[in-house]
Amino acid sequence: MDQRVLEAMLPYFTQLYGNASSVHTVGQEARYALDGARERVARVLNCRNREIVFTSGGTESDNAAIQGAATALEETGRHVITASTEHHAVLHACQVLENRGWEVTYLPVDDFGQVDPQQVYNAITNETTVVSVMYANNEIGTINPIADISAAVKTRAAEFNRTIVMHTDAVQAAGYLDLDVRKLGVDMLTLSGHKFYGPKGVGVLFIRRGVPFLPLITGGGQERERRSGTENVAGIVGLAVALELADSERDAIGARCLALRDRIIAEISRRIPNCVLNGHPTERLPNNVNFSFAGVEGEPVLLGLDLQGIAASSGSACSSGSLEPSHVLLALGQTADVARGSLRITLGKDNNDSQVDRLMDVLVGLVDDLRALPTLSGTAND
Amino acid sequence: MDQRVLEAMLPYFTQLYGNASSVHTVGQEARYALDGARERVARVLNCRNREIVFTSGGTESDNAAIQGAATALEETGRHVITASTEHHAVLHACQVLENRGWEVTYLPVDDFGQVDPQQVYNAITNETTVVSVMYANNEIGTINPIADISAAVKTRAAEFNRTIVMHTDAVQAAGYLDLDVRKLGVDMLTLSGHKFYGPKGVGVLFIRRGVPFLPLITGGGQERERRSGTENVAGIVGLAVALELADSERDAIGARCLALRDRIIAEISRRIPNCVLNGHPTERLPNNVNFSFAGVEGEPVLLGLDLQGIAASSGSACSSGSLEPSHVLLALGQTADVARGSLRITLGKDNNDSQVDRLMDVLVGLVDDLRALPTLSGTAND
Ligand SMILES: Cc1ncc(COP(=O)(O)O)c(C=O)c1O
Ligand SMILES: Cc1ncc(COP(=O)(O)O)c(C=O)c1O
Repeated sequence: MDQRVLEAMLPYFTQLYGNASSVHTVGQEARYALDGARERVARVLNCRNREIVFTSGGTESDNAAIQGAATALEETGRHVITASTEHHAVLHACQVLENRGWEVTYLPVDDFGQVDPQQVYNAITNETTVVSVMYANNEIGTINPIADISAAVKTRAAEFNRTIVMHTDAVQAAGYLDLDVRKLGVDMLTLSGHKFYGPKGVGVLFIRRGVPFLPLITGGGQERERRSGTENVAGIVGLAVALELADSERDAIGARCLALRDRIIAEISRRIPNCVLNGHPTERLPNNVNFSFAGVEGEPVLLGLDLQGIAASSGSACSSGSLEPSHVLLALGQTADVARGSLRITLGKDNNDSQVDRLMDVLVGLVDDLRALPTLSGTAND
Repeated sequence: MDQRVLEAMLPYFTQLYGNASSVHTVGQEARYALDGARERVARVLNCRNREIVFTSGGTESDNAAIQGAATALEETGRHVITASTEHHAVLHACQVLENRGWEVTYLPVDDFGQVDPQQVYNAITNETTVVSVMYANNEIGTINPIADISAAVKTRAAEFNRTIVMHTDAVQAAGYLDLDVRKLGVDMLTLSGHKFYGPKGVGVLFIRRGVPFLPLITGGGQERERRSGTENVAGIVGLAVALELADSERDAIGARCLALRDRIIAEISRRIPNCVLNGHPTERLPNNVNFSFAGVEGEPVLLGLDLQGIAASSGSACSSGSLEPSHVLLALGQTADVARGSLRITLGKDNNDSQVDRLMDVLVGLVDDLRALPTLSGTAND
């Protein structure tokens, strides 16, 4: 988390500790902070303040968006469309709907992980109520053409004369891509604080005015009845400050990461034989590198890097503790074996060229060593 | 929030910033912090570490408990029992189930706000799957005989030879009452961090081992598949430290609050004519005072107190901005007019006798003044 974010949050723990729903002055100070945070987020998203709902994170926002719109529109149809490479927060929200009788279409992606707007258009039926396609993928960094997908949804919705809600999970996009919801043409958008140097446990769900929605979490009626629970004032203030900083520094940080990213991709391709870059070569987050190395498991690579003080991951953080192959790589058509052996390197604003030097030296040696071990391939126990 | 809590949280914002699900060292430091927090909470609740699920607050815990157990047990019946004085996080969770076809029994309470264990016993049918009764009420402070209610539920469940999950919302009890889940005999219990000098936006759901449960929030499978989403490490650490402190200081703080509470109750009764103490005279949280003053609206009392630097509330914080009469006071049999005119004074560990002196002087004068205004009664616009 950015130090400036922490400083913005600090007063709201022990001094301005009011409950934002209380009518007294201590409460109104908290309310004022919430209002300011909402305005900051709305400015980055180019939407109305009232269209911003604060949640407990990206997972809750994804769940709430998909289930909230689907149940609100239940009377008009029970078909939802998403992509096979979505985060589990989206996939499992769809599965919950499936268990309750909804039909879900999981669209395939191309070899680079992109969703085709025409396929979205074709998948829409006169039962479709929600389309959810992620802005950028968390494992392979592939960027989807969200504006085109939104346009396809809106065109088809008009042809069918029905309401179809377009949601995008922009958790990985924040800080690197344009979050203007008007340009994107989306009805709902998910953010998670800790992905742009903000706090963990706080997120955003943008809900365009007029979009049908039933809340996932109900109670005291906070967030205009769209998300109940005493507001996490410090976390919300932190998220807003972090988003504002991330947006204002986006071009500079993006350019720096992009240069490092392309250097890593070029060096790995040159120095490590039998490797495959997963994801799109150009329509890709500037901070994402993802490779598979033939005959090498992901786990020992991660451990080897970690011993040298380099934190990387395989698959997504939430499931990288397990030996499950990545569902994203499987969706790209890889075998379970290859899908289990990927390495994801995520860059951040504090990374620099000498760290990349070091990463490369360690990684090249590591893959060499692992490939020299006779026992490694074929002994994965799952 | 307690300063000691903030200090415990601080390292997890900018230094130990790892994602607890990552396999690398930075992630494992976060995992270690989570494990420690879980153990601290489990010790206070006298349960197993694995029975503790961290959530985003009391509202989510209540929603997840009731909906999670009810949907998991759906095949065995669709009847839920709760009380009319519950927090809206419980009531609205029940309403969501009603909308999906469940039957819900809202038990009445006695004149002091207590639920009768015999009535719980009588309400159970061979369709009942969940009983949710709060430990202590947030508006009037009335303490329910949870151990007796749990015993009634277990007796009836045995007679019907079926699984009935007993949940209690202990949000207001934490720091003042014994949270030992074995003594209470409950299967599920809800806590919210900010009610015991911990952070906002983080809560606990205790789920006894073996209790059927389907998660409300799904995704990466964190919290052993019971609550997905990147863990709010700082918040969880803060909650755990706060709960441990609250529990260890419980007797001392409780005794101090109790003395102040009883002084306020005695003085208001003596110095302000035509007032009614809402709630139970003795089976009451040591930090809760709740009075109605005949012919006086709650709102102007709150504003008058606030102008003198005294933060109080009317009804619950979540709805006190509105002119809705309190559903809790309505459940005690009060008219809407009286229910709209209550004053809740909540004590905390930093309150003292000279503050009570001041409160009394301000309040007595205020009620006097308001009663002298000719226009006040009968003009409430709702
Ligand atoms: C694309 C994507 N969506 C959703 C999430 C879930 O966010 P959170 O873990 O903050 O709930 C994540 C990250 O964890 C993500 O990468
Ligand atoms: C009894 C009770 N239950 C549940 C809640 C909800 O907790 P939170 O607002 O932290 O979600 C509260 C307080 O707000 C409460 O007093």
